[in-house]
Amino acid sequence: MAEVQLFGLWGSFFSHRIEIALKLKGVEYEFIEEDLSNKSPLLLQYNSIHKKVPVLVHKGNPIAESRVILEYIDDTWKGHPILPENPHERANARFWAQFIDEKCRVALRNAYGCQEKEREEEATREACELLKTLENELKDRRFFGGDRIGLVDIVANFIGFWLGAIQEALEVKLFTEERFPKLYRWSEEFVNCSIIRESLPPRDKLISFMRRRYGLSS
Amino acid sequence: MAEVQLFGLWGSFFSHRIEIALKLKGVEYEFIEEDLSNKSPLLLQYNSIHKKVPVLVHKGNPIAESRVILEYIDDTWKGHPILPENPHERANARFWAQFIDEKCRVALRNAYGCQEKEREEEATREACELLKTLENELKDRRFFGGDRIGLVDIVANFIGFWLGAIQEALEVKLFTEERFPKLYRWSEEFVNCSIIRESLPPRDKLISFMRRRYGLSS
Repeated sequence: MAEVQLFGLWGSFFSHRIEIALKLKGVEYEFIEEDLSNKSPLLLQYNSIHKKVPVLVHKGNPIAESRVILEYIDDTWKGHPILPENPHERANARFWAQFIDEKCRVALRNAYGCQEKEREEEATREACELLKTLENELKDRRFFGGDRIGLVDIVANFIGFWLGAIQEALEVKLFTEERFPKLYRWSEEFVNCSIIRESLPPRDKLISFMRRRYGLSS
Repeated sequence: MAEVQLFGLWGSFFSHRIEIALKLKGVEYEFIEEDLSNKSPLLLQYNSIHKKVPVLVHKGNPIAESRVILEYIDDTWKGHPILPENPHERANARFWAQFIDEKCRVALRNAYGCQEKEREEEATREACELLKTLENELKDRRFFGGDRIGLVDIVANFIGFWLGAIQEALEVKLFTEERFPKLYRWSEEFVNCSIIRESLPPRDKLISFMRRRYGLSS
């Protein structure tokens, strides 16, 4: 058994977050692809509470929940800090990571998952407001982490890559360069980092997956 | 201006979490009671994103979101560690703190806020299952933090104290000694700690507040 194992899914941005962090730290790991329709006994054992990926197993000890895993990785391996050293900057990074997960992600899911026209418009408006708030936080920095990728960039991976694939799959345009010039530029910088690029799923495969998921022909 | 200020509400368990942490660390602070129907310009400035309490202001720098603030306090003041030193134990504490906030708290709010009998029963069943899961994690330890109060105990403050007040206000019994013997004993240990006891709101006042909040006469 490898010292570090990651139970994940190729198309999951939660899993991908952990892959980015491990690659940034230069940690070797074994990726174990799960089948959500037939979860492995090991996954159910390692994450008996939520029964979800990702789960990181380090020296036999399992850790679940993507942001908890990212903190664990940063606490354990010292190269390329994911969180800043300064306590106030650390708090700021945690605040925005939580904002992305609890606000932006939920709003975007509502905007894309909506069946009714009126509710879709409201959900889209809310998602745009939240993305604009996030863009204002980015300001003119290259990354949320400054000159290099940090916690907020990693957690924003679904905006940086998945959102474009979902938009192409559903043929909608919410996140555009015109509307969010700085955040859009950030997403280009993000996917062009060699470590990110190497670890992303194939875009065409992801688009087909999303089309099936949203009940469209692939 | 005091070096440490806490913008909070007397009846909010989110605010109370921060008070516990500051008291455990022995940090002097000024408590600034907010009026939610007329929020102060300072609160709106310090937490312009969520416009909510609690906000901790340290040397003029604001930090929002209760679990983010708890981590900040632990990163900044070294006495009485709130999180364990060991990375795996730290991850475990963060996992359960998140479980309490995202699962137990939401389920209990649904169980007590429900108007329909059938949905209430389902919400109550779910809340009980989650509390049982939490109890299983506690095992026979005095606190979730072992011999002393840690992150999970602090975040579980609404189970340790608020839940009893809500139950008395609404005249319901979900969290009982018979049903959750270990978690109930934990709640007694918790409220009997001198630091917790000193910082809790008056129980009668909280019960009256809850009765008004749930539309019952006080």
